[in-house]
Amino acid sequence: MNISVPKGFRLAVAAAAFKKTGRNDLALALSDFPAASAGVFTRNLFKAAPVLVGQETLKARMSARAVLINSGQANACTGPEGFRRCEQSRTLAGAAFGIDPADILPASTGVIGMQLNMEAFSRATPSLAQNIGQAGIEDFAAAIMTTDAFPKFCGESLDFAGKKVLLAGVAKGAGMICPNMATMLSAVFCDAEVQTPDWRAMFKRAVDLSFNRVSVDDDTSTNDTLYGLANGASGVRVAGPDLERLEEALVRVLKDLAYKLVQDGEGASKVLHIQVRGASGAADAELAARTVGRSQLVKTAMYGKDANWGRVICALGRSGASFNPDEVSFTFCGVELFSQGRPTDSDFDSLLKEALEKRDLTLDISLGRGSGEYLLLASDLGHEYVSLNADYRS
Amino acid sequence: MNISVPKGFRLAVAAAAFKKTGRNDLALALSDFPAASAGVFTRNLFKAAPVLVGQETLKARMSARAVLINSGQANACTGPEGFRRCEQSRTLAGAAFGIDPADILPASTGVIGMQLNMEAFSRATPSLAQNIGQAGIEDFAAAIMTTDAFPKFCGESLDFAGKKVLLAGVAKGAGMICPNMATMLSAVFCDAEVQTPDWRAMFKRAVDLSFNRVSVDDDTSTNDTLYGLANGASGVRVAGPDLERLEEALVRVLKDLAYKLVQDGEGASKVLHIQVRGASGAADAELAARTVGRSQLVKTAMYGKDANWGRVICALGRSGASFNPDEVSFTFCGVELFSQGRPTDSDFDSLLKEALEKRDLTLDISLGRGSGEYLLLASDLGHEYVSLNADYRS
Repeated sequence: MNISVPKGFRLAVAAAAFKKTGRNDLALALSDFPAASAGVFTRNLFKAAPVLVGQETLKARMSARAVLINSGQANACTGPEGFRRCEQSRTLAGAAFGIDPADILPASTGVIGMQLNMEAFSRATPSLAQNIGQAGIEDFAAAIMTTDAFPKFCGESLDFAGKKVLLAGVAKGAGMICPNMATMLSAVFCDAEVQTPDWRAMFKRAVDLSFNRVSVDDDTSTNDTLYGLANGASGVRVAGPDLERLEEALVRVLKDLAYKLVQDGEGASKVLHIQVRGASGAADAELAARTVGRSQLVKTAMYGKDANWGRVICALGRSGASFNPDEVSFTFCGVELFSQGRPTDSDFDSLLKEALEKRDLTLDISLGRGSGEYLLLASDLGHEYVSLNADYRS
Repeated sequence: MNISVPKGFRLAVAAAAFKKTGRNDLALALSDFPAASAGVFTRNLFKAAPVLVGQETLKARMSARAVLINSGQANACTGPEGFRRCEQSRTLAGAAFGIDPADILPASTGVIGMQLNMEAFSRATPSLAQNIGQAGIEDFAAAIMTTDAFPKFCGESLDFAGKKVLLAGVAKGAGMICPNMATMLSAVFCDAEVQTPDWRAMFKRAVDLSFNRVSVDDDTSTNDTLYGLANGASGVRVAGPDLERLEEALVRVLKDLAYKLVQDGEGASKVLHIQVRGASGAADAELAARTVGRSQLVKTAMYGKDANWGRVICALGRSGASFNPDEVSFTFCGVELFSQGRPTDSDFDSLLKEALEKRDLTLDISLGRGSGEYLLLASDLGHEYVSLNADYRS
């Protein structure tokens, strides 16, 4: 899959050896023009230095010129010195590319508690500058990976009165597996011209419909960051009613990336699509979906290819969502397992035999209450997850 | 370990073959006198028939004569017919023992969604009556097991002015692994004479200090039940200031049983003692402890014998407890890993090498805020958990 780099963006990757040598672990996306900027960050109280710097930058400026991401060191729990090193990294990159350091949005992922290796950073910056424009979207996505099994990227092309607008997105890391390698990072580049308040507002909504609706291990890292730049290089100004189409495309990009995160969720073999309907409100629907999606018992049952309806009802019953148990029904991969508070007598083991072999499993739950809905994507929990997370440091 | 049956209680077990043949799966404890009764039940909205019957019984009567427990079938999600069968089982046992069925407190654990096998029950009841008084505490504990690796029981002996009061407790099942085999069940027998309101009040408090402070997979089954009977057969009336001593003993019994639940938590190899101090309140302390205790990443790290401080701070930071990250410190097995928002430079891997081989691991967290405290026991998460839960039905 070849995704075009949106107009007016140039990408570069380099091997700085923050953790391992011989692989690219530093990536920069440069916009030739000031780009409307957006950012969404972790809500964890322990925030990495680049998260704090990124938040400040977005508060102070409506536009930015670059996104700078390193993998291998998270620069989290590094105190004032970590903050300084993050600023130094922007200064170095700013000098190499001839742009204002305050126009660079930084993000890091990797080992936490360790100071950023500035020597590695300084050494790699010149090659980053030399290679600018030579990297593609996939190279960028690969350079920000940590334990990811594959690079995650996608693109959208929109036509506005015969003129093309491109969006391209990258993401890394489903599981929150700090302090070693951590974090969900993502960046979206777009060549439309959009007013910053519109761009930021659509990011907030789009994240809520995508990244906020996936769960691998229900953790939130010190470094989770999503950046968006829209630089206007396509010559297409998107405003008014056209914004909706751009936002729909952005949602598709983020949903695609979010799906890939779950698909690659720390040894995940299944993607469980949990749709809750009929809740008394959206909050209750989310509560029910999240409790099912993070239930270790549901997750191990999916891994074991077991249509274990009892684990689903147990999770629903303790979720805190309000409903009458006698009005709860659900289908699993299209087969009704539970109806009005009772298991159905269907021979579901044989009916589901084939469906359970597939990667994508659907669970449609009706709480029989109101009109509250929520869709959550969750990964399963298997031996690979345990191995990856238990044996990680050894 | 031989635990004496408190005075005025007689126990019986039988093999009814609710699920498997050849093992005891039915247990009854009979009090020769009406005993002050107490019960604590699951808060899951899907409540098994015996839970509903038990709750009604405790509401209607201040005393009871027997506790009747079967393992292999949970009688949950069985509708009105399940309710009827639960009542039938009390009728049969009442007739066999010559007591009022409404004086029998029922509990079930096992496969959910399946109607109780009344034929098996009827067949086993006579042998239950024949054998009454022949079973010991350990036999009772073994008869109520499902996937438990060992029977869980303990006892306390108290001296009140030269007279002895005995307490004995049994429990089963740490993991909530319905619909197959499920549930935490526990019963405590005591030969003191206690007023029912006092007995019930101390149960509520004691549960909050014991069973409510353990976490295996953070699930809550359809059947979780704890019963307590105090029959006065010792001739010792416990009232006024003496109640405190009895309550302390009850807390010790329930804590001991709760510890054993975690120790046997679905293939658990570790018991993590998570002590949170310095929270702005008890609720925040609990939130912090529970988020750490249910973190898959913390649990897999314990399994992997990895002093992974980053996973702890990530869980704390997203717990919802309020604190300043720069004031957070914690020690792990006595070694300070994190101090005032930063990792310590201690060579913790070698310092902790020996400690990490042990079953019991301690994590002492200070949030640097106020005086809120909470202690939670949590199990680890390893390959055995996945195997047990993923392969359970196959």
